[in-house]
Amino acid sequence: MSLQTLTPFAESLGASLFGDDAADPRGAPPPAERLEFDATLALRHGGAHRCTLRAELVGPADAPLVVVLGGISADRHVCASDAFRAPGWWDLQVGEGRTIDTRRLRVLSFDWLGADGTLDLPLDTADQADTLAAVLDRLGIARADALVGCSYGAMVGLQFAARHAARLGCLVALSGAHRPHPYASAWRAIQRKIVALGQLQCAEDQGLALARQLAMLSYRSPEEFAERFAAGTVLDGGAARVGAEDYLDACGARYAQKWSATAFLRLSESIDLHRVEPAAIRVPLSVLAVEGDVLAPPEDIYTLAEGCAADCRVRVLRSRYGHDAFLKEYAPVARLIGDALEHLRDEEGVPA
Amino acid sequence: MSLQTLTPFAESLGASLFGDDAADPRGAPPPAERLEFDATLALRHGGAHRCTLRAELVGPADAPLVVVLGGISADRHVCASDAFRAPGWWDLQVGEGRTIDTRRLRVLSFDWLGADGTLDLPLDTADQADTLAAVLDRLGIARADALVGCSYGAMVGLQFAARHAARLGCLVALSGAHRPHPYASAWRAIQRKIVALGQLQCAEDQGLALARQLAMLSYRSPEEFAERFAAGTVLDGGAARVGAEDYLDACGARYAQKWSATAFLRLSESIDLHRVEPAAIRVPLSVLAVEGDVLAPPEDIYTLAEGCAADCRVRVLRSRYGHDAFLKEYAPVARLIGDALEHLRDEEGVPA
Repeated sequence: MSLQTLTPFAESLGASLFGDDAADPRGAPPPAERLEFDATLALRHGGAHRCTLRAELVGPADAPLVVVLGGISADRHVCASDAFRAPGWWDLQVGEGRTIDTRRLRVLSFDWLGADGTLDLPLDTADQADTLAAVLDRLGIARADALVGCSYGAMVGLQFAARHAARLGCLVALSGAHRPHPYASAWRAIQRKIVALGQLQCAEDQGLALARQLAMLSYRSPEEFAERFAAGTVLDGGAARVGAEDYLDACGARYAQKWSATAFLRLSESIDLHRVEPAAIRVPLSVLAVEGDVLAPPEDIYTLAEGCAADCRVRVLRSRYGHDAFLKEYAPVARLIGDALEHLRDEEGVPA
Repeated sequence: MSLQTLTPFAESLGASLFGDDAADPRGAPPPAERLEFDATLALRHGGAHRCTLRAELVGPADAPLVVVLGGISADRHVCASDAFRAPGWWDLQVGEGRTIDTRRLRVLSFDWLGADGTLDLPLDTADQADTLAAVLDRLGIARADALVGCSYGAMVGLQFAARHAARLGCLVALSGAHRPHPYASAWRAIQRKIVALGQLQCAEDQGLALARQLAMLSYRSPEEFAERFAAGTVLDGGAARVGAEDYLDACGARYAQKWSATAFLRLSESIDLHRVEPAAIRVPLSVLAVEGDVLAPPEDIYTLAEGCAADCRVRVLRSRYGHDAFLKEYAPVARLIGDALEHLRDEEGVPA
């Protein structure tokens, strides 16, 4: 996601979950480290596989641990830090002085299993949850205090809560449900067929870029498109070119530069293989449902909330950003996360 | 559209707009004829072109004339008749004893310009409106008493009302607006890119079938998919197969058998080149808006209704069928058409 949209928000931010008096903002920057290691995972559809896992940790070693997981195209680099200065995918909410404040919380994330394109077999969210467990094992961490997951990360969080309940304090699941919605599955299936069509034609990048364009339509809303692309259609070289086409072309091209078809296909598929019984969720849960989100529609999130076996707080949001609201709507998402993680302020391990 | 869904409705129908006493249902069947002729049209983006036009007429020669126009994949064969017994695309509402009763009304329709795949240049709805004018000229008909248009047919109807106001009594525009919605345009642009990807290397049918699959998602609603395809995803030969995939594959294959890529591309494009100023509509108007229709969203239809320069009746419908509600929701559509055409009962030319 572009970080350009961050600028206007960032200037009005700076309020951390714990207040600015909790630590000296001019102190040493939070430590950050990356780890990469091989582990054998028992993949749900592939049996035992030796896999390379990649994780990133930012924040004091003795702070409460918060796992932060993003959408399907997010990675382990959640936020910029002194050690890793490139923009992260969620600098808006995570970092020094942000909602999830890396001066007081230790943030862990990892690259999705399959994101490097080396695993060409069916993956699902249970495999990602087990990947997280393997990362925690490697770090010698018995239990994460919280997991904040967005979109695919929310689904993985639900699987982790179901499979490794003893290892999780609470779960914040933004715009993700216990199942893929059948309409959204159809939408993704067509994306995968577009990639396959491209592969048939030796035009893999073109197919991948086009599949991403279609995915973009499911991430955003008609309202946003109506505002941004009202100019309408022009004729260009004897063919119609619609208002959103430049934008979509750019989104697709950028994606195809970074991702492989195999990674896209297997991660896309893993959403459609996702399923968690709500009753299997036994850790305190906070969920965000966004009206107009076709990928994780509020009805499904309400079903999850009603069916889960623990306390569940539901926040409902109207947003012109549809599924991507978790990335774009600063204030309500910050409030939800702030409320859900407030108890960590009093836990042991918070630096004074 | 499949006619299987017609059966349960049809048994409870039989009530024509004019009541069963207006004519003897056991009388001679309504006459029907087809015409095919060449005419020179001044195409908006292509200049003067010699084109082949194809129309079908059903109903008494002295009855009020109602033009009936369907979606982008509809054709001149609106309803089955004694002369042309194949199922029509709108037997649910049009035919002997139906809402648009071919015993008392003369129904005219035509094949979309470009549908035969012989015109590979930009077309738009103004060209279709002029095609209708050329058909009326050929038939020696100065004025149609009504035009009932659905989806693309509604857009063409709006163009006809704007360009040939003196030739139209009233317009019924179902699920079509004065402009393409920018989000829907983006959706169609991706469909056209899918076809182009298929054309790269002789997989034209495959690209066309896949584009149609994507179009199907825009014709239907998440609610319907949730009900029909709740079974979820299975693994099939090492790849995920989602619930709706068999259905979508069948829709795509059926479409690709009948249509050419050129016809698809040029007709799809013509929707995105469509634009009518609401204030240019000066004939009495009845419109149908369906909540959840992403192609012709209610907001756009309200803008049309508010801006038009004539009386406008608006009917709003909730339907699990989204854009396709005009084909699937018998009763509310029948009522809307019945109300809009009721005045034709008293016009000259209705057979006693």
